[in-house]
Amino acid sequence: MKRNILFILFCICLVNLYAADVYAPWRQSWLEKAYATTPELVKSLVKPLRLVKPCRDESAFQGWRMDPSGDVSDLYANPINEQNGVVIDFGEHITGCCSFTLKPSKHVPDAPVRLKFTFAEVPGELMASYDPYTGGLSRAWLQDEVVTVNTIPCTITIPRRVAFRYVKIELMGNFYDFYLTDINCETTTSVSRPIPQLPEYIDDKIKRIYNVGINTLKECMQTVYEDGPKRDRRLWIGDLYLEALANMYSFENYDITKHCLYVLAALAREDGLLHATVFERPELHPQTGTHIVDYSLLYNVALFDYLRATDDKETVRDLWPVVKEQIKFACKYLESDYIYNPSKEQEMWIFFDWTEELDRRVPIQGAMIYSLNNSAEMARILGYDKLAQEWEQLAKNMGKAVRKANYDSKRGIFVSGPDKQVSYISQIWMILAGVMTQEEGTEALNYVFADEDALYPGTPYAYHYLIEAMIKCGMYREAKERLLAYWGGMVDKGADTFWEVYDPNDDFRSPYNFYPVNSYCHAWSCTPVYFINKYPEIFLGL
Amino acid sequence: MKRNILFILFCICLVNLYAADVYAPWRQSWLEKAYATTPELVKSLVKPLRLVKPCRDESAFQGWRMDPSGDVSDLYANPINEQNGVVIDFGEHITGCCSFTLKPSKHVPDAPVRLKFTFAEVPGELMASYDPYTGGLSRAWLQDEVVTVNTIPCTITIPRRVAFRYVKIELMGNFYDFYLTDINCETTTSVSRPIPQLPEYIDDKIKRIYNVGINTLKECMQTVYEDGPKRDRRLWIGDLYLEALANMYSFENYDITKHCLYVLAALAREDGLLHATVFERPELHPQTGTHIVDYSLLYNVALFDYLRATDDKETVRDLWPVVKEQIKFACKYLESDYIYNPSKEQEMWIFFDWTEELDRRVPIQGAMIYSLNNSAEMARILGYDKLAQEWEQLAKNMGKAVRKANYDSKRGIFVSGPDKQVSYISQIWMILAGVMTQEEGTEALNYVFADEDALYPGTPYAYHYLIEAMIKCGMYREAKERLLAYWGGMVDKGADTFWEVYDPNDDFRSPYNFYPVNSYCHAWSCTPVYFINKYPEIFLGL
Repeated sequence: MKRNILFILFCICLVNLYAADVYAPWRQSWLEKAYATTPELVKSLVKPLRLVKPCRDESAFQGWRMDPSGDVSDLYANPINEQNGVVIDFGEHITGCCSFTLKPSKHVPDAPVRLKFTFAEVPGELMASYDPYTGGLSRAWLQDEVVTVNTIPCTITIPRRVAFRYVKIELMGNFYDFYLTDINCETTTSVSRPIPQLPEYIDDKIKRIYNVGINTLKECMQTVYEDGPKRDRRLWIGDLYLEALANMYSFENYDITKHCLYVLAALAREDGLLHATVFERPELHPQTGTHIVDYSLLYNVALFDYLRATDDKETVRDLWPVVKEQIKFACKYLESDYIYNPSKEQEMWIFFDWTEELDRRVPIQGAMIYSLNNSAEMARILGYDKLAQEWEQLAKNMGKAVRKANYDSKRGIFVSGPDKQVSYISQIWMILAGVMTQEEGTEALNYVFADEDALYPGTPYAYHYLIEAMIKCGMYREAKERLLAYWGGMVDKGADTFWEVYDPNDDFRSPYNFYPVNSYCHAWSCTPVYFINKYPEIFLGL
Repeated sequence: MKRNILFILFCICLVNLYAADVYAPWRQSWLEKAYATTPELVKSLVKPLRLVKPCRDESAFQGWRMDPSGDVSDLYANPINEQNGVVIDFGEHITGCCSFTLKPSKHVPDAPVRLKFTFAEVPGELMASYDPYTGGLSRAWLQDEVVTVNTIPCTITIPRRVAFRYVKIELMGNFYDFYLTDINCETTTSVSRPIPQLPEYIDDKIKRIYNVGINTLKECMQTVYEDGPKRDRRLWIGDLYLEALANMYSFENYDITKHCLYVLAALAREDGLLHATVFERPELHPQTGTHIVDYSLLYNVALFDYLRATDDKETVRDLWPVVKEQIKFACKYLESDYIYNPSKEQEMWIFFDWTEELDRRVPIQGAMIYSLNNSAEMARILGYDKLAQEWEQLAKNMGKAVRKANYDSKRGIFVSGPDKQVSYISQIWMILAGVMTQEEGTEALNYVFADEDALYPGTPYAYHYLIEAMIKCGMYREAKERLLAYWGGMVDKGADTFWEVYDPNDDFRSPYNFYPVNSYCHAWSCTPVYFINKYPEIFLGL
């Protein structure tokens, strides 16, 4: 650990021979705090629930249904040779390393055996053909592992951590009978307290959504807030922000939030900008060159949420330089008329949603105002009044500017870009930024809801902000209906954990051109936990 | 170790509740001696020699030639992505575990990678398609390993021990550039002394045959005399016999011979019969149900060779019950006319060669006489004169009987079975048994050499006994010519080690219906080492 820290510091120092590191006075201490707060993983041994038989079913999600087909003891009692292609159902989404035991049957094993284990989060992923691979991300994300076993009897642990509910076992040219038994998974999560439950009498659908949400969060909480335990298995600021929100209203494990905030700070670019994503292994390092402006701005909001939940002013003061630098960086893109101009100098990645055609000018204006408002409020709490005032003023100027430039007062909506694009996301961020009043926001949202051509959100990530904006506008009934329809739609389609991508109209939608590589347990989908627990009066009728 | 011994003893005791164990007084001590004599493995780090390009060439062995195509440093200096399918040549046959290092290139690695390593002993094996698999042995013997790597940089050791000269590396859907470097193999052998070399001035062909033979032996000498380091990786009595002969005339490592003799004894069937093959892992155990009569009889000869080489009478006296039981068992198959009747009671596996149509009646009669003669001579050295006399008499009676029943004095050959089959192997074993004089043997061999219909040997194993029989008949020049033609034929076809199967007329011959699963480093082919060093006057003209 010590050696790693020294190595990273050495690299950073090397960089600083050429460019000034704005975080030089703090970086070492941030890195040490990051390492010191690494969450401990809680391990459990999970046994499979049953055997299932995959059945083609056009009415099922992605065309596959799993029918119960026997006890796991049936598998263990008969030679695996007679059960080639058997599918085991663990009954829930789990994350960990699997082990299994092979035992001889009638004959003395006289050759190695070759087994293929395919782990999958959802039935359609299990049953798809992976090769020839046509997806847009690494083929290696798919969880099929080929294992050669030289000696039977033996107990083998497949070293790769997998995230799955189903596992299919295929024999590749074995030569004698043998038994496969005791397939188990040593699961990990950094959640150490029992999963908080909703009261018995709550509406079943809401309870199911809540449970799926909390399982999603639990599965993603490893040594960092991962985006997804199958893929990408790493910390992104956007996912951190939403996971921390959900965690705040469930497990209340603030150490992992603190850890992630320090990790991101310690690995920031030397000019102050945060990296959008970082890796833990082989040692902590950023994805150099990957920055997302809206994510960087949300870091400030996440830190403010942390402050409100913990009152840990010491940490927030310690990380304060990061807050200032994110705003400073965004300000570089502001024109003299207070309009954020993404194409100024070099264009930075702005995310908001997996929707390529989205015009991001109005949304990024909104996200910056939102971040300024949150940062200013945080500054006041810490006694940095001058800075707070400055940021409040800037937010006001930016709000006025965007209203002037992009508000279509006739239709009561914000339009973005040269083509005056009408999108949900523009309205959402203008609402969250406080640029629209409750009434204006309601009007704008109702407009896009009614407009079939309005660009709608493509991910649960973007959907989160829609629900948040509706609540801000007081559209409580509608917010609940939308949450029930959207996340409830996944539950109805059999989700054990919420998905990275969900389009109610297209089961096979994939930003990577290959649906099996989608993540089906994705942190940014877990926020029903936050909404339900934060607003029980809206979602539970309490 | 202690626990393993106790477990094995417990199993043996359990068996003995039902059947008397003829080795009960010795078995525990044999097992302890077997464990105590386990050879130590010598490890070396071997680096690859060069890159090669596989080229289709109908004149090359199995249709593939490997052309040098660059330095390994070229591979290491460029991203592996641009070199998908690269073939690395280690320049020699090696046995061990490979490791490699992956390093990032321009981009920070943000996904796992999937690599397939195919290890092969010969070019044709490397270039064949393995699936769908049609071979008659386990698909898992083929040495293609799929590896998922989660984190780069990293150094990975592929846990499977492989035997190979060539390795092909294929990328399966990676997503970013990275380097593969430092592919090395930690090799193992129990040979600890330098490889004995022939003098410089010796004929090049003989030197090459000798070197390939000694490499074959070295590769097969692991913690037992393995039959082949790729396949089956275990101790068979037949291979032990020939390896021990070659070792006696090269490395002179008698501890491994002693170890193997004790292992086989300790794991023998409780009625006294040896198992033809045994396994070392997870602990020593026999292949229950697998017995080969000619192999059991050769155990006695191997023990006698050990005695002559070491003068270790203590060990031979200790193992004497095994010698007696192998003969006693074979005697059960003798009819009152002293003819071995394979179909008496239950038929036992008799091997001699991978040639199904071989009639084995005359050969087994010969092998039994050969074993009796060797055992009797050994008995005399130990002072067991009465037993020696008994066995000598039995051998004589058997010789007379087979001569009377199977010698075609008109043609001067032995014919076997109801169809009076004419085979090389019948003549060979009658010569080794001393049933024919030198002149008769020469005549018989010349007869089959000239007879196109005579069944000829299908393996180097059977070929060994042919050379031995020719030398016994004084056919020195012809023996040398045959050795040069047969083993030299493999060398001319590019063998680095001698093969399990070699038919000069058919590169694709396989007892398993799939030539890539043949072993191309097979102990029973290594005996040119023995012949050349034992008979320098014949093979080196010294």
